[in-house]
Amino acid sequence: MGEVIATYLVHDIKKNLQKKAEGIALGLTVGSWTDLPKLEQEQLKKHKGRVMEVKELPEDEAVNVYLKKSVSRGLIKIAYPAANYSPDLPAILVTAFGKLSLDGEVKLIDLEFSDDLKAGFPGPKLGIEGIINKVKVFDRPLLMSIFKGVIGRDLPYLAEQLKQQALGGVDLVKDDEILFENELTPFEKRIETGKDVLKSVYEETGKRTLYAVNLTGRTFDLKDKAKKAVDLGADMLLFNVFAYGLDVLQSLAEDKEIPIPIMAHPAVTGAFTSSSLFGFSSSLLLGKLVRYAGADLSLFPSPYGSVALERGEALKIAQFNTQKENVKQSFPVPSAGIHPGLVPLLIQDFGIESVINAGGGIHGHPNGAKGGGNAFREAIAAVLTNESLSARASQSEDLKLALDLWGEPVVAK
Amino acid sequence: MGEVIATYLVHDIKKNLQKKAEGIALGLTVGSWTDLPKLEQEQLKKHKGRVMEVKELPEDEAVNVYLKKSVSRGLIKIAYPAANYSPDLPAILVTAFGKLSLDGEVKLIDLEFSDDLKAGFPGPKLGIEGIINKVKVFDRPLLMSIFKGVIGRDLPYLAEQLKQQALGGVDLVKDDEILFENELTPFEKRIETGKDVLKSVYEETGKRTLYAVNLTGRTFDLKDKAKKAVDLGADMLLFNVFAYGLDVLQSLAEDKEIPIPIMAHPAVTGAFTSSSLFGFSSSLLLGKLVRYAGADLSLFPSPYGSVALERGEALKIAQFNTQKENVKQSFPVPSAGIHPGLVPLLIQDFGIESVINAGGGIHGHPNGAKGGGNAFREAIAAVLTNESLSARASQSEDLKLALDLWGEPVVAK
Repeated sequence: MGEVIATYLVHDIKKNLQKKAEGIALGLTVGSWTDLPKLEQEQLKKHKGRVMEVKELPEDEAVNVYLKKSVSRGLIKIAYPAANYSPDLPAILVTAFGKLSLDGEVKLIDLEFSDDLKAGFPGPKLGIEGIINKVKVFDRPLLMSIFKGVIGRDLPYLAEQLKQQALGGVDLVKDDEILFENELTPFEKRIETGKDVLKSVYEETGKRTLYAVNLTGRTFDLKDKAKKAVDLGADMLLFNVFAYGLDVLQSLAEDKEIPIPIMAHPAVTGAFTSSSLFGFSSSLLLGKLVRYAGADLSLFPSPYGSVALERGEALKIAQFNTQKENVKQSFPVPSAGIHPGLVPLLIQDFGIESVINAGGGIHGHPNGAKGGGNAFREAIAAVLTNESLSARASQSEDLKLALDLWGEPVVAK
Repeated sequence: MGEVIATYLVHDIKKNLQKKAEGIALGLTVGSWTDLPKLEQEQLKKHKGRVMEVKELPEDEAVNVYLKKSVSRGLIKIAYPAANYSPDLPAILVTAFGKLSLDGEVKLIDLEFSDDLKAGFPGPKLGIEGIINKVKVFDRPLLMSIFKGVIGRDLPYLAEQLKQQALGGVDLVKDDEILFENELTPFEKRIETGKDVLKSVYEETGKRTLYAVNLTGRTFDLKDKAKKAVDLGADMLLFNVFAYGLDVLQSLAEDKEIPIPIMAHPAVTGAFTSSSLFGFSSSLLLGKLVRYAGADLSLFPSPYGSVALERGEALKIAQFNTQKENVKQSFPVPSAGIHPGLVPLLIQDFGIESVINAGGGIHGHPNGAKGGGNAFREAIAAVLTNESLSARASQSEDLKLALDLWGEPVVAK
């Protein structure tokens, strides 16, 4: 029989983590246990949660001061039998973190699914390999850029911005995630215009760029809207999955009539990942669960910018996105605060099977998005040929301008 | 033109809240502003976020110790023009708290919708008044109880538990939120069995009890499943809305073929409400947004039990559930740790237009769920006739047993 093993970081005022763990394992499954007659214990055995591990951690004085109480800290692992829930993410989340999320300082760090449970999840449709084949870039990280300041702008404005980004040699362009259905640049028109622009850039330069259009609106309309996008020839969907639900992403990923890749945006996730005491780990949501649910690309805060994630957690997201599983790999997309000077660090940390994603670092370039994209492509080429950025910059005006503007952090080897 | 005004609690290391507020107002709408030509400023004006208020709060030393940095604190109000997003909750949440949720210590305290935006939300189908008419209880808080320890149990077990609860005089019984589709007690059978049991109790006692069945499974199957429940004569749906999404609740509430009330469960919300620095306020999610989205009843942690919410926040949830709006009222259901001795406090805090909801406080009664229900009904009757619980207990064995077991906190007047 399958199971899900949940790992929690707990802070416990009663300072008895073993007891707390046992209380959770019973409370979230069969309820009381020791008072039950032997026969009933036998019947309920396969439904009973099991404490797998209790690991005490050193107390954290700063936490004690903040909580105004002295608490012990520890990691607790509990196994929840699959017999207790249906094999869908809402049921699994409610089982492992429904009531418990409301019960004091407890953060859900990880969920490990048994193989039979995992088998029910679709994973990405194309995954890293499929996307690489689409953009025909096999030997370097992909480069992505983001529309900027497009709210209130019209189609010609978006078209020109898209053109400049594509001319800069980016592989992927994503909609701004805050661009919703609107009269100036409606969904269908964006797809059609985007296709035209990217086709003409391809004809001019031979460079293929894909555009991810923001799939928005009411939940029960999303499938039809996504199919409309497919019919219009959309390359890719951007999706604010955490404003909807992981299960909605899963249904989009499972739908055979929506065969294009989905890029998961982390909007709103800060609300449930930022606290060290409560919520979910970023790696669970943006690394593991979005992949199981079917994201071909997972955006997450890079460890470098001002909107920063702790480096170890960012690396763990990428690890969960790409480690061996029975589903395809998701592309890790460390985002925010990215400029060409960071490319050596990005490739060191995330490897070439990742996407380098920039907004301001493309558009803020003195030569515009075209120059910005080019500076990134030069920086990537330099790293992959073991050339220093500054050496390369002596032959690339765009890279030189970028390094002058944003600098080049020293990379620890 | 409509707008949403967001109130944030921010902690800012740069100690310049006005600048931070202006950065948010621009960054989440039109992007850069001061460098734009006059004509473009004119065109974009109706899309520009506006800082409405910046209110500095005293620094909190405990927070500084925890964050290991000295931060200023304050409340910031920003208005987001409705021209920027479609009138649905995912779009509104991504606009007001998408990227921003990932940008340091910021908690979304409130969202105020302009009237034209509010008009797009259904609110509860029946609301307090409709439910009161269904259970025909007009002069006291409703009493609700919860199935307990039903995982791994069969239908006769559930039927007996339901019967005992109904015999105790409760008005509503809800499924355990962790009971999902399962072979022993499938959804449809629970509805049918529940109907039979409650009909026979009604015939025996004249007391009408409604049963809320847990609506679970994959998102895109929920409407059909809910309609099936309606066809089978289900009284009410329990829904773990935050494991799905508020927009899903809204679609269920809007569907004319699902005319039965929906009870919103707060499972998983601790993950995004518990931190004082990050996430959402409980009152926004469980008070305001579930009501707009269509919950007839909203469960939330009471301020009394071990799973406790701060009292002011719990009262604010109830206020948002019930205050004058253009949608019907949601029933506030303060839950967890409730026993008969708390009834005076509950009625003092939440009034008679609330639901008194108990699990252990019903089932843990020495005379079982029937005795537990009766003890609550007696306690309610005592409070409403200005009698003390102990006076009433002298004539009610069940109430006496409950007070002996769980005590009777002193109520501050």
